[in-house]
Formats: sequence, C-alpha cells, structure tokens
Amino acid sequence: MRRLKTLAVIGVGLIGGSAALALRRAGIATRVVGFDRDHAALEKAAELAVIDAVAESASEAVKDADLVLIAVPVRSMGPVLHDVALALRADAVVTDVGSTKADVVRVAREELRELFPRFVPGHPIAGRETSGVESALQDLFRGARVVLTPAKETARDAVDAARGAWEAVGARVSTAGAEEHDRIFAAVSHLPHILSFALVSELASRDDAAELLGFAAGGFRDFTRIAASSPQMWRDIAVQNREALLAEIDRYTARLAVFRDLIERGEAAGLERLMTEARTARTNWAAGGKRPASNE
Amino acid sequence: MRRLKTLAVIGVGLIGGSAALALRRAGIATRVVGFDRDHAALEKAAELAVIDAVAESASEAVKDADLVLIAVPVRSMGPVLHDVALALRADAVVTDVGSTKADVVRVAREELRELFPRFVPGHPIAGRETSGVESALQDLFRGARVVLTPAKETARDAVDAARGAWEAVGARVSTAGAEEHDRIFAAVSHLPHILSFALVSELASRDDAAELLGFAAGGFRDFTRIAASSPQMWRDIAVQNREALLAEIDRYTARLAVFRDLIERGEAAGLERLMTEARTARTNWAAGGKRPASNE
Repeated sequence: MRRLKTLAVIGVGLIGGSAALALRRAGIATRVVGFDRDHAALEKAAELAVIDAVAESASEAVKDADLVLIAVPVRSMGPVLHDVALALRADAVVTDVGSTKADVVRVAREELRELFPRFVPGHPIAGRETSGVESALQDLFRGARVVLTPAKETARDAVDAARGAWEAVGARVSTAGAEEHDRIFAAVSHLPHILSFALVSELASRDDAAELLGFAAGGFRDFTRIAASSPQMWRDIAVQNREALLAEIDRYTARLAVFRDLIERGEAAGLERLMTEARTARTNWAAGGKRPASNE
Repeated sequence: MRRLKTLAVIGVGLIGGSAALALRRAGIATRVVGFDRDHAALEKAAELAVIDAVAESASEAVKDADLVLIAVPVRSMGPVLHDVALALRADAVVTDVGSTKADVVRVAREELRELFPRFVPGHPIAGRETSGVESALQDLFRGARVVLTPAKETARDAVDAARGAWEAVGARVSTAGAEEHDRIFAAVSHLPHILSFALVSELASRDDAAELLGFAAGGFRDFTRIAASSPQMWRDIAVQNREALLAEIDRYTARLAVFRDLIERGEAAGLERLMTEARTARTNWAAGGKRPASNE
C-alpha cells in the first residue's frame, strides 16, 4: 500500500479527531487538514494539535488530500459530499464513519457521480460516553471492528487503502454489503437502543415516575445506559435505517408476545427454556467476545 | 429495640449467608443456626463460619430463634413456612427476602395462620453476579434499599424488629403495600429483565445468530447483561408477579408501538422529543441515584 501523506478530516469530533491522531501516529498521514461547520470545534482541534491546518470549507480541505475521512452525522453527508466532489483529486480515497450505510451509499452515488468509485463506505464500531474533539483518543480504534461496505463500482485500490488505514490503527476490518450491514446493526445495535429509549420514555411519562425510579437498581441501570445516548444521532439512525429497524421491531414484538403468552398461561417450563437459551447465548457471546467497544 | 440473640437462616445462599455475616457483625445475632435443603451448601456455610450450627430441618432451625430469615426461592416459601410454623416461638419475628411480595403474603397467611402477625415480608434490593454462600459478603446490604411490606395484621413490634435488623446492617428501609411493591418492581426490574431475555432469545433463534452477535458491541453488552440472570429465579418472578408484569408488558408494547409509528412515518421531530425526554429522565436518575445494587 502506498503511504498517504495528506489526510483531510471533515468533522473533527470524537471519531474524526481520534482517527486523525491515530493515522498520524501510524504514519499513514504526515499532514492533517481539518474542516468542521462548527468553528469552535475546528479551532479546538487545531489548538490540541489534532489537526495541522484549518480549512475554510470541505472543498478546500480535500483539494490536496490523499485520504479523506468524513466523520459527520449521516444526515449531513449529502452537503458534505457535494462540496468534497467539487475539489477531490481523481486518485484520492474517501471514506466515512456513519452508523448506517445503504443511505450513505445512495447519497454518495448521487453526489460523487464519476468519483463514486473512490468512496469506501465504512463504520468503525467504537465510541466513548463523551463526545467532541476534547475526548479524542489515539487508541480509540485499537481492537475495534470496522465494517467496510464497498459497492460494486468501488475501486479495488480504494478499498485496499481504506482497509490498510484502519488496520494501521489497530482495527479489525471486515466487509459486507451495505444492506447486510444495516440489517445486522438494526438487530444488534439500533433495536436495543430503541427498546431502551422506549422503556425510559414509558416510565418517565407516568405521574409516579420519581417514586418508581427511586427503586430502580443495577439491572435498570445497565439496561437503560444506552437511553442516555444522543437523541439527534439515534433519531437519524432510526429514520435512515427505517426498513431494517421496523422489521427488527416487528420480530422483537412477536417474540415479546411469546414471553407474554407464556407468563399469562403460567407456563413456567416454556419460560425457563427460552430464558435458558437466552442466557446461554449471552454467556457464550460474553466469553467469546473480544474487547467490546464502549459504544456504537 | 431488644437485642436478638439467636438468628435462624433458612436458605444459606448469597443473600442468607450475607445476612448472617452482617447481622452477627452488627451484634443483632450472637448465634446463627442454618438450614438448607442443599446439604453441601449447608456444610459449606458451617465450614466458612457463616453459621454456627447446622439444623436438620427448618423446624429445628427456628425452635430457639428470636429472628428467622427465610432466604429461599419464592416458590419454596410454602413448604418452608409450613415447617417454620410447626416450631416457631410465639414472640419470634420471621422475615424473608423474596423479589415478589403479594404471593409470599398469601402463602404466609395460609401457612402461618395465627402466627402470621409475626411475619414481616421483606425485599432487600441487593445481589451480586455470583451466587452461593461462598459469595456471601458482610457488606452486601450497606447502602442497599430494603422494602418491607407488612400486612394489616402484622405486629408493630415485628415490623420494628425487622426494620431495626436491616438498618443495623446499613440498609435504607422503606415500607409499601405488597401489591404496590409488586407493581413498582414489575416496572423497574421485572419488565427490563423480560425485555432483555426476549431480545437475546429472538437473536439466538436465528440461523445467522453467530454472525449477528459477532458485530454486537457495548450497547448490546449492557442491555443484555441481565439476560444472563438465573432462568429459574426469573421464571418464578414472572409467574408469581404475573398480573403486574402483564400490565407492564402491555404498557411497554404500546409505547414501543408509538416509537415504531414515528419511525415508519419518518417523524424525526417526534422521535427526538421522546428520546430527549428519556435521556433527561435517565440522566437525572443516574445523577441523583445512590450507589445502585449490582443486581435485584
């Protein structure tokens, strides 16, 4: 893999900032140009030496870049890709970090047009409880999984470059189709978030919410930790991955109805069987899992 | 409060063993007699000096006891209370640690008959990931909440004695009606457990479960930690607290349907509003909460 020299980071938050730090340390980038619509964040990134240079626009940021990392909310991908397309070098590689992929691929195909083969859709499964460039860590991606979802038009060398960059910062890279990615994450990430938000939403809506919550303990704490996640981010994910997520909600609702029915009929043996299967699956997962990311 | 001397512990697992250690240290008990249907557990408790004497039956354990703590699964309460009633002193106080209370009160009323006023139903909200007397900790109840659910017949001095014992080991004691207790815990504990079991159960039932779970990360880990709980214990809780739990499942299902509808219609603003309310409630809870128990 050729050595990249200039990295452009569009969106200098936790993920963009951490990637900038990690890619520079790994020698993938020797110069990092940053852009962010949020001027304060951009200045902070420069002040913290997370980026070497500040650009006035996404176009300006990418014009000399070998690698472009777009780390903005998925809803902002359209305008950002539009600006990127205005100045991108034909041999540059563009990748992103969005939690949903089919929507991003669709927008990228529209905005990048003949440059679309240079775009490698990506999703690093990493995060922290805190956000912003101040929270950036150069080790954030060490041991984390990254899923790349190249389209049929995506250039082979672009995929190799994106894979090489992520591997250089310690990530474990796999590839999947964008729809398959969205289906998988609807099941193991987006659905649990909606379920957790729904529980707290329901309890919080009651007149006796304060009394009820006064008795909540450790099980509630863990189950609802993800209900403290960003409403803007999860609103967007839910809407962007709508179809896969609705299918998951329906499957889940059907399974919950099975539990309800067993409880109503006092079918202790059937209930124990399902719970035992669940516990076994959860225990095996925890035993076999690598260090899980703290967020997704 | 008079000083109790002899404590009988029926069921020498994590909770019974921890209570024995804590009550002795607090000076509430000077001698602890234990009984457990599981002979190995009983011998282990004696070997670890968690109990001073081993009884051959629940009846034998309680005959000289000032305070009787029953720490057996709720489904075993009937036979245990039957045996306790055969030998209980008329001035002794009996309490339990079951996670559901209306069912326990009903069984206790049947089995204890004229001794029922001596029974103070209780629920310490404490636990650990591990079980068994080997995991017993004398500090398990320090800072934990304990809910007592006395009935109208329960003797005032018995309630005072049970409250005094729990406070002596560092617990924060409150009282509630048994039905109110069960309704509260259906909402903040039993429902989340069923929801978590149902999610893992659904995922584990798929042909591609292993692939899906390979992408699960930190959000999934926390959401499903309680799906690794004891299927026997949770099967029993679900069946014993059936009515309150079914009502909670129905409320939850209705709220999940609201989320589903907002997602289907792409109603980002409505979704964000509900998620923001949930996050605010969760964040306030976490900020205001005392040290939560690790289990319930």
